[in-house]
Amino acid sequence: EAAVMTLCAKINGLFCEYSTPRILVVKSWKIGLIYRIYQYIVLVYILWYVAWRGGHQDTDTVVSSVTSKVKGIALTNTSGLGEQVWDVADYIVPPQEDDSFFLMTNMIITPNQTQSKCAEYPTRKSICTSDMNCTKGFKDAQGNGVQTGRCVHYSDSVKTCEVLGWCPMEKKDDPPNPALLADAENFTIFIKNNIQFAKFEFNKRNILPNMSSSYLATCVFNRNTNPNCPIFRIKDIFEETQEDFQTVAVYGGVMAVQIQWDCDLDKDLCVPQYSFRRLDKKDPKSSETPVHNLRFAKYYKNSDGKDSRTLIKGYGIRFDILVYGEVSFPSADYICDFFVRFTAKAYTKKKFTYLDEHELVSIYFLTQFTNTELK
Amino acid sequence: EAAVMTLCAKINGLFCEYSTPRILVVKSWKIGLIYRIYQYIVLVYILWYVAWRGGHQDTDTVVSSVTSKVKGIALTNTSGLGEQVWDVADYIVPPQEDDSFFLMTNMIITPNQTQSKCAEYPTRKSICTSDMNCTKGFKDAQGNGVQTGRCVHYSDSVKTCEVLGWCPMEKKDDPPNPALLADAENFTIFIKNNIQFAKFEFNKRNILPNMSSSYLATCVFNRNTNPNCPIFRIKDIFEETQEDFQTVAVYGGVMAVQIQWDCDLDKDLCVPQYSFRRLDKKDPKSSETPVHNLRFAKYYKNSDGKDSRTLIKGYGIRFDILVYGEVSFPSADYICDFFVRFTAKAYTKKKFTYLDEHELVSIYFLTQFTNTELK
Amino acid sequence: EAAVMTLCAKINGLFCEYSTPRILVVKSWKIGLIYRIYQYIVLVYILWYVAWRGGHQDTDTVVSSVTSKVKGIALTNTSGLGEQVWDVADYIVPPQEDDSFFLMTNMIITPNQTQSKCAEYPTRKSICTSDMNCTKGFKDAQGNGVQTGRCVHYSDSVKTCEVLGWCPMEKKDDPPNPALLADAENFTIFIKNNIQFAKFEFNKRNILPNMSSSYLATCVFNRNTNPNCPIFRIKDIFEETQEDFQTVAVYGGVMAVQIQWDCDLDKDLCVPQYSFRRLDKKDPKSSETPVHNLRFAKYYKNSDGKDSRTLIKGYGIRFDILVYGEVSFPSADYICDFFVRFTAKAYTKKKFTYLDEHELVSIYFLTQFTNTELK
Repeated sequence: EAAVMTLCAKINGLFCEYSTPRILVVKSWKIGLIYRIYQYIVLVYILWYVAWRGGHQDTDTVVSSVTSKVKGIALTNTSGLGEQVWDVADYIVPPQEDDSFFLMTNMIITPNQTQSKCAEYPTRKSICTSDMNCTKGFKDAQGNGVQTGRCVHYSDSVKTCEVLGWCPMEKKDDPPNPALLADAENFTIFIKNNIQFAKFEFNKRNILPNMSSSYLATCVFNRNTNPNCPIFRIKDIFEETQEDFQTVAVYGGVMAVQIQWDCDLDKDLCVPQYSFRRLDKKDPKSSETPVHNLRFAKYYKNSDGKDSRTLIKGYGIRFDILVYGEVSFPSADYICDFFVRFTAKAYTKKKFTYLDEHELVSIYFLTQFTNTELK
Repeated sequence: EAAVMTLCAKINGLFCEYSTPRILVVKSWKIGLIYRIYQYIVLVYILWYVAWRGGHQDTDTVVSSVTSKVKGIALTNTSGLGEQVWDVADYIVPPQEDDSFFLMTNMIITPNQTQSKCAEYPTRKSICTSDMNCTKGFKDAQGNGVQTGRCVHYSDSVKTCEVLGWCPMEKKDDPPNPALLADAENFTIFIKNNIQFAKFEFNKRNILPNMSSSYLATCVFNRNTNPNCPIFRIKDIFEETQEDFQTVAVYGGVMAVQIQWDCDLDKDLCVPQYSFRRLDKKDPKSSETPVHNLRFAKYYKNSDGKDSRTLIKGYGIRFDILVYGEVSFPSADYICDFFVRFTAKAYTKKKFTYLDEHELVSIYFLTQFTNTELK
Repeated sequence: EAAVMTLCAKINGLFCEYSTPRILVVKSWKIGLIYRIYQYIVLVYILWYVAWRGGHQDTDTVVSSVTSKVKGIALTNTSGLGEQVWDVADYIVPPQEDDSFFLMTNMIITPNQTQSKCAEYPTRKSICTSDMNCTKGFKDAQGNGVQTGRCVHYSDSVKTCEVLGWCPMEKKDDPPNPALLADAENFTIFIKNNIQFAKFEFNKRNILPNMSSSYLATCVFNRNTNPNCPIFRIKDIFEETQEDFQTVAVYGGVMAVQIQWDCDLDKDLCVPQYSFRRLDKKDPKSSETPVHNLRFAKYYKNSDGKDSRTLIKGYGIRFDILVYGEVSFPSADYICDFFVRFTAKAYTKKKFTYLDEHELVSIYFLTQFTNTELK
């Protein structure tokens, strides 16, 4: 015994403190017992983890389901179309209301296109002086059709190669500014989110039990005054992310609505937090503005039976609804809490023993078991 | 040596047993060696993990791909449309057959809408007595158009503000009950799921090698008699989840089809398990019934060139196909097995040495490496 | 001290070397200190992890956003339609350009379908000799309509049960070979991918700062000469996966474009790697070829106001864009590096002390904190 003591005294205590059993015994008898008990719990956990978790746990990772519904009316007044009112069936393309959808806020419309021949839009490649410059059957990836081999007048001054395709062609203009559906800033998005944890009979919705349908008919999310209302005004979403909706509306963008679940099943406390984030942030080092658009067409049959279409290059905002969260379950919870306190204590005491080391490990195990991220 | 023994005798053996090398040496020489060998394996693992896993492992997390195909014919007989037959091109909206799709089971159809003026649907906000009550240009988020400022007859008894929009308006009715496409209960969903694990040259499908195309043409999933057939009758899916399809069909809902892969590459054993779960379960504490619908339109050009549309408020079921699973690979497998036995033994012996502690850690490492969850 | 030495000499050094402080003190004083400092860092990490990470970290798992844009023109020349040019609005169904989209490469077109009565396609079930064989109202899941109860001529030689449905019926032919949109091999896919790590103010795009818009207008991805260009020629994608595009184009398939991010924020080094993988690989043991198609329709109103539609059974390729990656952050990075070296050293020395054991644990912690997989 004495030998060990002197040995300890001689060498740096820093190292001794964790290699000499003596310190442990004398100073921390209680902790020692708790630790022992605790060890068994962890072991049981791990055996359970390896032996039993195997096949079954995974089907019980939390399952999240999202549906969304956009509401609002927009009025446009264009030379081409005159006054026109847009509702959800017009501006949600394609029609889907799940965790990702596209809200069209601006567009370039090219009506009455038919399969016919017209002069290609003037580009370095398409401008020509005679048919010699045009190759029958040539398809320019950037172009709008298949060249016929003829060189025709695009305008009085410019000649370009003729192409077969949907004519007249879409103009290579910038989208209208301000955006056609500028009114969209007042649209609202109603987001329904359910999460489930079957094995624990656990099943929550972001529509809280105390929300009456009359409440849901009128409420609008507000970080301060109304943080639980699942109906979001688009303008508010953009303001929270320091983005100007009207600017984004012109060229389009991608916006995330994040739902964060932190559930404590002891206290049956389970209320989601909402946050927003623009996903297509421009690289500060890059100059070009982010653009998000997609082309689609409405197809018609003319009286003569010929197909025609209205081509729409729709700029707009894709909303991605992302769900995250953690659920902590009683048993584990208890140990884990006890644990943080415990380590904290040891730490403040500036006392560093293998004991602590194992705790660190164990903390880690527990947090692993108790925190399940929603995918 | 003696000094250490007495020391041990004096202080609580509980703590001594893991701080005195002696016990180890004498009692568990074999285990000691195995442990030593084992340690090296773990170390190699970890070096590999840190040094090599870095860039490459991730592209090899298991990749899952799902395609689905709905089959079935439904007959509706409505006053408006007369007898009409619906096939997959009519009731899958939008047309997509991947891991999430919408099957329309019920709808409110509003044909021949044109951009024109009509009396708003009567609500607290829209009912008026004179033009004074209506504000030109006012857009009610809940409304169907832009007010023109005039107060017109909605019916003989009721006057409401006139709006510009798609007229005639969709009726604010409940959806038909029973659902129009009640026949959908007999539709079938054919789900194809491939999973891959390139690094391990691992590539499985839920269409098992022994399934002939003739089998796939006729088989229908049945938990007991036919648990591997990847073709699911919708009615069966709902029955397994104790939901009544006809009820859900009226207002719509969200249903998950879960595919669970548990593969043991030693035994080349790899057959998926199917299960079902309704995702938009109603909160027991809440009264309102879950609803899932979306609005879309078919656009037409009238002979006079004016646009018209048929608005469809489609109620239906969104199917989400969720894939989970674990794959365990030989090498790791072996150690891990050996491991559970080992720890178990140590445990029964009520013997708790650092050795065990490290095992716990290691088990954890191994399970980490060997269980890969499909995302 | 001497006592301990002799003790050590007597019992197996293998076990002694990690229970005697002396070795540590003498041989590795520096390492010892570093280790001590290091321990505190880990502890702080863990306290932070447990106490603070709880609610907030998760909303900061890396968020990835993908948008894609297909470019190209295809020419088809069919007896039915004559010469026709296809652009993105025609061949992307439904119109969406996010991380999963369907590019139609081949199709069976059935124009001018109306709700009417016609002879069912001849099958074992539908062939009949008299009305007795047909049941009014019977709906064959494999069939195309609702039987009217009459047995009519399908051809001069064959009689089948008449059905009410969309007539004329789609022919049960194989898809055209070569594929109608064989030109699609020259289409390009422009993929934009942003990743974000808000808590670390971290925000990257696969469009690198040095890429000018003129570069993006012309560049095409090439593994060797142009590995960073985010524009992919479809033919190249298939060649990299040893698939023949023209074969796949006929029956359709599912192709993954994988984006791998490995970021080192010390060196502000963050360039994505691209790879490709066919997801619907055929099971070597199975004979049938993979097929990927979907049915959709374009709806028209005839002059008489009757609905008609053009049914399209579109075969094509679904592209799934999958994003993975790891981000390592300075502080952790440093330790971790130091760490690998350290363990490696200890390993080569064949020296195994508890110290090392803890390192193993710690390495694990760190890699946990530092490697975050994009979902």
